Order: sequence, then structure tokens, then C-alpha cells
Amino acid sequence: MITTIDLNADMGESFGAWTIGDGVDPDIMPLISSANIAAGFHAGDPSTMVETLRLASRHGVSVGVHPGFRDLVGFGRRPILASAEELVNDALYQLGALRELARVEGLKLNHFKLHGALFMHAARDVEFAEKLAAALTTVAPALPVYCLSGSAIDHAAERVGLPRVHEFYADRDYNDEGSIVFVRKVQRLDPQQVADKVLRACQEGKVETVSGQEAVVQFQSVCIHSDTPGALSLVKAVREALDKAGIMVAAS
Amino acid sequence: MITTIDLNADMGESFGAWTIGDGVDPDIMPLISSANIAAGFHAGDPSTMVETLRLASRHGVSVGVHPGFRDLVGFGRRPILASAEELVNDALYQLGALRELARVEGLKLNHFKLHGALFMHAARDVEFAEKLAAALTTVAPALPVYCLSGSAIDHAAERVGLPRVHEFYADRDYNDEGSIVFVRKVQRLDPQQVADKVLRACQEGKVETVSGQEAVVQFQSVCIHSDTPGALSLVKAVREALDKAGIMVAAS
Amino acid sequence: MITTIDLNADMGESFGAWTIGDGVDPDIMPLISSANIAAGFHAGDPSTMVETLRLASRHGVSVGVHPGFRDLVGFGRRPILASAEELVNDALYQLGALRELARVEGLKLNHFKLHGALFMHAARDVEFAEKLAAALTTVAPALPVYCLSGSAIDHAAERVGLPRVHEFYADRDYNDEGSIVFVRKVQRLDPQQVADKVLRACQEGKVETVSGQEAVVQFQSVCIHSDTPGALSLVKAVREALDKAGIMVAAS
Amino acid sequence: MITTIDLNADMGESFGAWTIGDGVDPDIMPLISSANIAAGFHAGDPSTMVETLRLASRHGVSVGVHPGFRDLVGFGRRPILASAEELVNDALYQLGALRELARVEGLKLNHFKLHGALFMHAARDVEFAEKLAAALTTVAPALPVYCLSGSAIDHAAERVGLPRVHEFYADRDYNDEGSIVFVRKVQRLDPQQVADKVLRACQEGKVETVSGQEAVVQFQSVCIHSDTPGALSLVKAVREALDKAGIMVAAS
Repeated sequence: MITTIDLNADMGESFGAWTIGDGVDPDIMPLISSANIAAGFHAGDPSTMVETLRLASRHGVSVGVHPGFRDLVGFGRRPILASAEELVNDALYQLGALRELARVEGLKLNHFKLHGALFMHAARDVEFAEKLAAALTTVAPALPVYCLSGSAIDHAAERVGLPRVHEFYADRDYNDEGSIVFVRKVQRLDPQQVADKVLRACQEGKVETVSGQEAVVQFQSVCIHSDTPGALSLVKAVREALDKAGIMVAAS
Repeated sequence: MITTIDLNADMGESFGAWTIGDGVDPDIMPLISSANIAAGFHAGDPSTMVETLRLASRHGVSVGVHPGFRDLVGFGRRPILASAEELVNDALYQLGALRELARVEGLKLNHFKLHGALFMHAARDVEFAEKLAAALTTVAPALPVYCLSGSAIDHAAERVGLPRVHEFYADRDYNDEGSIVFVRKVQRLDPQQVADKVLRACQEGKVETVSGQEAVVQFQSVCIHSDTPGALSLVKAVREALDKAGIMVAAS
Repeated sequence: MITTIDLNADMGESFGAWTIGDGVDPDIMPLISSANIAAGFHAGDPSTMVETLRLASRHGVSVGVHPGFRDLVGFGRRPILASAEELVNDALYQLGALRELARVEGLKLNHFKLHGALFMHAARDVEFAEKLAAALTTVAPALPVYCLSGSAIDHAAERVGLPRVHEFYADRDYNDEGSIVFVRKVQRLDPQQVADKVLRACQEGKVETVSGQEAVVQFQSVCIHSDTPGALSLVKAVREALDKAGIMVAAS
Repeated sequence: MITTIDLNADMGESFGAWTIGDGVDPDIMPLISSANIAAGFHAGDPSTMVETLRLASRHGVSVGVHPGFRDLVGFGRRPILASAEELVNDALYQLGALRELARVEGLKLNHFKLHGALFMHAARDVEFAEKLAAALTTVAPALPVYCLSGSAIDHAAERVGLPRVHEFYADRDYNDEGSIVFVRKVQRLDPQQVADKVLRACQEGKVETVSGQEAVVQFQSVCIHSDTPGALSLVKAVREALDKAGIMVAAS
């Protein structure tokens, strides 16, 4: 049974004067233990990145890079058919950019998590997953890769000895294989139901699937997408449930 | 009298399928000792950056980052009135991005040189120069800043103890104060005249000014802009003249 | 005394998944008579433009194009030093793009209003103002140019015979010359005070200046910036005051 | 037997300071009858568009719009999985932008031709093809759509009564079905062979396929991609062969 769990959310997804979703980074940050920070390709500009790093730092939240497809207008949610080499270069570019801005703030990056359609691409495309894992062993061998258990990047990272953190997706539905059902647009969810689902996953290692069955889930981090409608109330409910159950929220 | 001199040029200024000027990076690289590599804001995409790093590495050329204004269509040559903080964040973002791609190639950055209108902004704007110098002491205290002697960034870097490399601009005219006369578009120059000018600057520390006077110049690096028309023939002529005169070309 | 007045606001300033300010286009649209629609350079993407055109159409609101500097991250609020020709081309590009999307929706553009720093540039820079006015006489001779009375673009448009609409800026302070005091960031304003100011301007043709004096103002349209904090409540208060006073809100 | 044929090439594919391929627009323009002008999403900025329109005008060349995916770094050659509506809006945006710049130059657009991966998407994706054709009937019912005979957009345009111009691709290989074999990167081709192939297609309506068979081809325009290596010599050879054979080159 889990006694400590990491709680991660995407932060810093503004761009210039624009904010995404409810724009509630300052409210969510105190409730989580790991922030996935956008690094300029799908969201986030250098100044937003610095503000987000400072916000995370003030709340003692671990920071990681959240590289995405180069597609501002599509918010990194539209797959782009590009070569594996090109995408690896894009991801490392974003990693380095955030790492530098973290350094000037006296912070170290704690994890690596791909965003949106690039996250899904790494979950499915073996060539990209392997090239990315190989590059990460050179530049960031100790940086845990947040991923879906059993995905291409999970296996590729394992083979080259990169640390991995498996996630439980609080605001996504699961199928009988224990994989998530991807949807284009997530609906507004009931905070209490989401909190119950997370708690059960932590305490029993199980989740109810869309078909009404049960699937076994193993994870070291709970992910809540900050652009899910009403994300703040979901994070609040989950955090409260974990606190009440005596499960400590902390980065791994 | 100078016996060894650094010869630097801007490299990696392509973007995606596009090339700049004569597109002669592979021809220029073997002739120089330091490459200023564009990092994505005015030119250069992650894959071009990697290719340029590899090209430099094959020829034993030192690599530095060449941050510019965020303005692809203007190639970083149009000043943008932005806050000093914003521009410092932009510059560090670019520094980190190149540093990461260099790391995966097993290379270390050797210098920092701003590009185009951002270079001129740092030469004139004390606030930007000081904030940039302060940030660099944190993230890259040993990285020499290439700059114009006597400029705002030169003074700011000196005050905080950053190493500096002063440049002689082979393809620019000088005024009686020993400063360069900036022009929007550089004309095609005579390679032999440019080579003679560089040689005299190295051997006598003097340059003829636009008014026909002489100005004293002090520098540790000769800069040739690779988008000056006929840049390759200029670099060739300069390199040949230096070789013939027994002046070694090497990064400082 | 004014019996009918146009009420304009900037609409469609989202970009992809992002919204600006309070994101209240659907709430503001029913209250105004003219919408200035962003066209992709500082905000607005093609699909957002179409949605905004449809929203305007549903509420019988006149639509105009709102061209800005090519600067998404700066939201068109940072001046870019570019040539007059280049900026005219940029403005016409945006005009044509919106005009086409309006055409497919069966709508005609009703006005032309520059955005942010480009609006200010046209107010001050005679060369840009004249080149822009000249181009507009060719492509849109009947399209009213929304502008500040007495500005460079006002004079340039007058000289070439373009229709002009002078604006009263509800959410800006005036100086004794009847010009607006430009500020980087507008503070939250009191809706009732703003409404009173607009009403007095309509009924008496006067505004209180920052020095406590009175300035005479002449205008055919009242502008409220939709990214002013609390913009919706300002528009509501102004609209209510105009309705109560029997001043009809309609595009000219 | 063909006595007059249109010869089209992609023009205006520079971006800001960058040029594509051999950068030979001024040399190719006098040899063709129709120019497909990039409109800002995969290449082309407003000022480049104006210059290209003027160049075409000086040589009496018909101009058309060449909309592509929103992907500068990928030059519109990487498919992006976006909704049909979004892509139609993107295409119309580009159409309007060029149309406006043409209007200020006193020119009318003569055709519509999609670029790169978006051209291929319209050739295969029925939903996009139909939505695009429907929109074009509203905004440009008389504008011929350049396309591959038998493609999805060909059928969609036919159904709604849009004029179509079928193309013969001089620098692409054909398969036995009379379709082109798409390749990521086109190799340098022999100008004489390309000219012979075009001439035969014009005179006999046949092309040799990659398997050595013959395929029947029907077309009203010959396309040569200006970023094929050595494009200028290909266009020259084709034009010379057509001239010699007494086949007039003119827009349809």
C-alpha cells in the first residue's frame, strides 16, 4: 500500500499575454509536488518559464521539463509527422532551455515528461522512443522519465537504464488493459469521483474501467491535467482525499 | 604584435529548408576558429543546430551561442522594444538550448555572442547589459562574452568579472572613435582589401577610418559576418593573409 | 448632441487554445456595435477569426479588421522597428485574410483599426501613415479608418479621402490637449465612473483631464479595450448608461 | 494533340532573409506562365509576396495562391493531423492574404493550388477535399483548382462545379496507374530527360512509368517544383523543348 505519492500537473502553459484553461497555476502549485513546465514549443515563453520556476520554488515543488510538438496554435495536441531525429532534437532543445532558466534561479530539473501528442507519439513509436532514450542517457541519465507503464518510451528507457516514474491519470478513463482511453477534449468531471478513484488506485492498486471491470494499476505519480475543465477543484479534491487518508504527497 | 588570433563567423543561420546568404557553412567552417551558432529565435532550428555543432566539431572549431531577438521574418535585425528582463530570459533560453544540444554531441560551449539588433542593444542599453551580465555570472561565469570594446555590455561584463573577447569587424567600416559604422545592408567588399585591413589591424593595431584618419583597435578576435555578400571569399582571403603572415588562427 | 454612437471593442484575441483577459467575447459582443477582429499577427488564428465573425454576425455587430505587429508573444504591444513598406504589407495581408474569411461567412468588413503598438506607430509616424493610407485607397477606399483625431494616420487618411471614424477611449486618461495618456498596463477601473465619463463625452463633448482641466473631444465611436481588467463590467455599465440616456448604439 | 500548355512553378518560397533551393525566382519567372505563390504558412512573408507578385506581373505571368500547412520549419512538407474545418480556414486565410496584396498591385488571382503535404492531404482526404471545395464555391467560384486528376479534391471540385486544371508533374516519377510516386527528397534530374518526358506527354499523352510500362496522362498544366535541385535548368530545358516543338506556353 502506498504511503507517499507524487502529484504532478502541467504548469506554465501560458504564452505571452495568454493563459490556458482557468489560468490557475498559482492556486494549483501549492497542492502538487511536481510541476511539468512547458518550454516554448507548444506553450510557455522564456519569461513565463521563469515565473513558473519561481512559483514552483516558493512552494517547494519539484520542476521538470514538458517538451511538446512545435505547434503553438495547436497547443501541441496535433501530431506532426516528423523524423525521430528531428523530434529528439526538438525535445532536447526544450530541455536545455528550461534547464538554463532553472539554473539561473538556482533550481535543478527533477523529471522529464513529454506533452500532448508528443507524449502519445513516444508511447507508440519505438524508433522515436529509443532515440530519445539514448539521447537522454547522455545529457540527463539521472532524470526520471514520466510515462505510461508499458509504453514504447517506458520500455526504451528501461533498456538503457533511465529512471522511470509511472503515472496514474486521475482525469482519464481506463480500459480493461489498464491503458488510458484518449479523448480529444476532456469533459468536466466530478471532483469527488476523481478523488475516490485516485484514493482507490493508491490503496488497492485498482481502477474501474470503462466497461465496468477492474484493472490493476501501478504508479509512483498521480497526474492531473491542468487544462481539464475545473482542474483546480479536481486537484483540491484529490489532495484533500490523500491528506485525509494519511498518504503523503511528495516528489519521488 | 599579435601572433595568434581568433577568427569567428556566424554559423547555422539556416532555418528548416532555408539557407541564408550563400549557404556556405561547410566551406567557411574549416577556415575559422570560432563559430557563433544561431539558437532558434532569429535563425537556426534544433536540427540545424545539431548539424552545425557536428560540422564545427569535425573541424575542431570552438562553438558559442549566438542569441538574437525573437523575430524569424526579420532575421533578428529589427529592434523590438522589450523589457530587459524579457530579453535576458530570451537570451538564456537560447543559451541553454544550444548548450544541451552541444552536450549530447559531447561538446562544450566556448563563448557567448549576441546577434544583430540584440548585439547592438546590449552595446547601448546599460540596463539590459547589466541584467544580462548578472545572469551570465550565475549560469556561465567562465564563458567569454564577445563584444565591442567600450560598449555597455563590455563594461557590464567587466564589472562582474566575466571574461570578454573584443572583436575587430573585418567587414565593417570604422569611424574616428574606433567604433563601427552600422549599416542596414553590407555591400560586397573586395577580399584583398578586407584581408589587408585585418592584417594591418593585427600587426599595427590600427585601422583606416571612413574619414581617412587612423584609429587604434584592440581585439582578440576577428569577426566576419557570414551573411555579408561573398563572405566565403572574404574569409578565404583573410585566412590566407593571416597564414602567410605567420599569425596562427586559434580560439582564445 | 449625440443621439447615436458606435461602441467598439477588440474581439477574437484568442490564439489556438488560449484566451486573453477574461475571455468574455460572447458576453461583450451583444453589447457593442462594432468588433475589431484580430487577424493572426498579434492574436487570432483562422479558426478563431471564423468563430468571432459568426459570433458578431449572430448579434448583428459590424466587423472590422484589427491588424497588429507580427509578435504573438508580445501581443502586438512591443514596437518593432521595421520599414513602412513592410508594415503596410503586413497590414494588408491581415486585412485580406479576414476579408476572405468574412466573405465565406457572407459578411463584409466595415472598418479598419490598427492594434496596439502598430496603432500608436500609425498615430505618430507620418511615412507609415501615408503609405498605409495610399494602399487603403486602392484596396478599401470605402472602409472607415478608426483613429485618434489629429493623429498622423488621421491626417493621412483625410488627405487621400478615406473615411475616418474618430474614437473616444472610455478606459484611457486624457491630457489637456485632448490626447490619451498611454500606459503599459491599464488598471482596473470603476464601471460607473467610466460610464459617466462616456455619457458626458457624448452629451457635452467634454472630458476631464488628468490635471483636472476639461478637454473638448469629438468622436463617432466609443472604444473599450477588451483586455482592460474587468472589461465586461465596463462595457455593461457604458451600454446601460447610453441606453438609459436614450443614445442609440449603432455602427456608423 | 496539345498546342498550348500552361507551365507552372512554385514562386515566392523565400521567408524574410532566407531563400529556398537555388533562389532563382527571377530566372524562372520569365519561362513559366503560372506562378503558385506561397502565402505565409509554409513560406512567404507579406513583403516577399508583394515582390513575387510584381515579378510575375513584369513577366505577364498568371498568379495563383499556394496555401500550405502552418509549419515554417517543416516547409509545409510534414503532415499535421488537424480537423478539416481548421485546415479550410487556414487555406482561405492564405487565399485572402494573397488576394489582397494582389489587389493593391492591380492583379487578380488566376488559380488555387495547395502546397506540399497539404496538397497530398487534399488528394487523399475526402472530408477535407469536400469542405475546401464547398468553401471555394462561395469565395472563389471561378478560380481553377490545380490538382492531380482523379484525386479527392479533383472529384470534390468537380461535384460542386469548380473549374479544375490537371497537372503533369515533370520532375516526379509515375506509377502504372498514372499516379505520381511521392518521395521525401527529389534527386537532381537530367534536364534533357525531363524535357523529353514533358514533350512526349504533351504530344502523345503518355509517360513511361517506374516499371517501364506506359501510362496515359491528361493535363492542362505542366508543373516543375522550384525546389527540385537544379530546377532552373529543368524549366529551361522544358521551355526550350516546348518552344522548339511549337507548343505555346500560356496560362489556361
